[in-house]
Amino acid sequence: MSGTVMAAEIAEAGAALSRQLMANAKATAALAARLKSLDPSFVVTIARGSSDQAALFLKYVIETRLGLACASIGPSIASLYRAPLRLKGAVAISISQSGTSPDLVAMQQAAQDGGAMTVALVNDAQSQLALEADALLPLHAGAERAVAATKSMIASLFAGVSLVARWSEDAELSVALGRLPSLLGAERAPAPEALVETLAASRLMFVIGRGPTFAIAAEAALKLKETSAIHAEAFSSAEVLHGPAGIVGPNFPILGFAPADAARAGFFETVQRLESFGAAPLIADIAQHPRWATLVAPDGGHPLTTPIAALHAFYRLAEATARRRGRDPDQPPHLMKVTRTV
Amino acid sequence: MSGTVMAAEIAEAGAALSRQLMANAKATAALAARLKSLDPSFVVTIARGSSDQAALFLKYVIETRLGLACASIGPSIASLYRAPLRLKGAVAISISQSGTSPDLVAMQQAAQDGGAMTVALVNDAQSQLALEADALLPLHAGAERAVAATKSMIASLFAGVSLVARWSEDAELSVALGRLPSLLGAERAPAPEALVETLAASRLMFVIGRGPTFAIAAEAALKLKETSAIHAEAFSSAEVLHGPAGIVGPNFPILGFAPADAARAGFFETVQRLESFGAAPLIADIAQHPRWATLVAPDGGHPLTTPIAALHAFYRLAEATARRRGRDPDQPPHLMKVTRTV
Repeated sequence: MSGTVMAAEIAEAGAALSRQLMANAKATAALAARLKSLDPSFVVTIARGSSDQAALFLKYVIETRLGLACASIGPSIASLYRAPLRLKGAVAISISQSGTSPDLVAMQQAAQDGGAMTVALVNDAQSQLALEADALLPLHAGAERAVAATKSMIASLFAGVSLVARWSEDAELSVALGRLPSLLGAERAPAPEALVETLAASRLMFVIGRGPTFAIAAEAALKLKETSAIHAEAFSSAEVLHGPAGIVGPNFPILGFAPADAARAGFFETVQRLESFGAAPLIADIAQHPRWATLVAPDGGHPLTTPIAALHAFYRLAEATARRRGRDPDQPPHLMKVTRTV
Repeated sequence: MSGTVMAAEIAEAGAALSRQLMANAKATAALAARLKSLDPSFVVTIARGSSDQAALFLKYVIETRLGLACASIGPSIASLYRAPLRLKGAVAISISQSGTSPDLVAMQQAAQDGGAMTVALVNDAQSQLALEADALLPLHAGAERAVAATKSMIASLFAGVSLVARWSEDAELSVALGRLPSLLGAERAPAPEALVETLAASRLMFVIGRGPTFAIAAEAALKLKETSAIHAEAFSSAEVLHGPAGIVGPNFPILGFAPADAARAGFFETVQRLESFGAAPLIADIAQHPRWATLVAPDGGHPLTTPIAALHAFYRLAEATARRRGRDPDQPPHLMKVTRTV
């Protein structure tokens, strides 16, 4: 293992999930019962940065598992535009590591004022965002020092899916979630050298996913920009052929997060289509692909946990790629841990 | 004017809006009255590609002007995941040029089944999407032959904002909308040579906006990829400093769409911040900026119409840039006019 804080925090993700699973068991069950009884008519999410990618994952989970529409509300709606939203009958879920960004606090307050029940998934349980929510699920990720969020992001995904598993009484999903901490905790192998080489040689690329892996792709693209200055942009494999493919030519790098659900066949058709335009695919999946470079990640045993394991494996690859590119992943240029947006 | 179909269709945008304004006046007023009486609790949108950028613009308008949360629902929720959404009390707005994509048709049907009132903003009024909606506002853009949607995109934005103007009884906005067709129709000047040079020399760039110009930035980035193979990625100026800025170094090209509302000051602070990292800004605004290259676009007289005029001016710049890069904007590689996603 390298000596960066980012690497150390990636390695702590399994322990963080283990802690969260134990500590939040009762709170998650109680909150799920409360939400079932409330029976909200829709959900909104409030987040920025990586946490907003966690919200995007949660949107997919909420829409497919609970049948509720889920809208990401830009915090500016409250902080900048002061537009009062009418959210009677809604649940508003805030996601944040620090829980201190003034615009998130303002938007959560506006959601409460608008009639929503507010739920905070926040790492710092003593933060204003955590304290002011109607209900709190602390992330229990422990202190996060790296500018690039990793374990708190994994912990956000885990907390959100755990809540929906209870809310939808999905025993199969709960079992898969129970296995995830040890699955991630067992991951110690360094990122494969050949993949580090490939990624480090890229200057621009597309990262694609679909369904549950689209948000994972979005988070991966953000991390590649942040830590390795690779211009990686994320697309749903359902959208990438609509216009973005105009840029794909010989050896254009594509990183694809294979979904483990109904989207899988169509996802691979799109990868093949992009390859026919010249693209060079690198696939994150649970087994080595016969033809393409593959980041092999553990099989979570469920379409909603496998992508979280893939993201964890990717984080190690991203950290190694940043170092290979001669960058310090703990000190991305221009960035601060907490961004205060108004 | 060049001889491309794309250029011809950009030039027709003003006439298209003029036609739509006349033809839809009664239908828009009647639909607005119906929506006011329905008093929906939230809105969902159904779209792909450029139309989904129009939906993103509409989300901003609906949230700030009507105080209703607005969620973009991936058509896959119906077509692939067959997850029944509960949309009682909601309005579902579909946006499409052709109205024929099977996944959009399936999602609109699912929204109806889920209890939503469905509204279609569709160019082909005889398409399945148009015929099956509870209410229809035809875009009246006329036949669109170019692969890259331009006049139909402008017409989608116009139809959506026109509906909200009536729904929210915003006379000021209605007046500004009434002026837009002739404002766009009067635009005939070729794209400034220096800006074509600058854009054509870029291989990758960020396109930023905020509030109403964020969706415009997203659409501009899509067009640059599609027609000029420039890897342009869009960000809200509220998000670009959270992680994406890690990639910004000397002479990194930034195209910024200046908002004309409360976001304006913060937007320019972010542009200056990016410039301090070395970025080279090109700003789309209503007047020449003293220090930065500027795409000067007509002043729409309202924060919601000025961005539409800026997009129209940008389209001409994008078309000229594609030709300067030796590409035929009417024939982007790998792309079809109607993408049938499942």
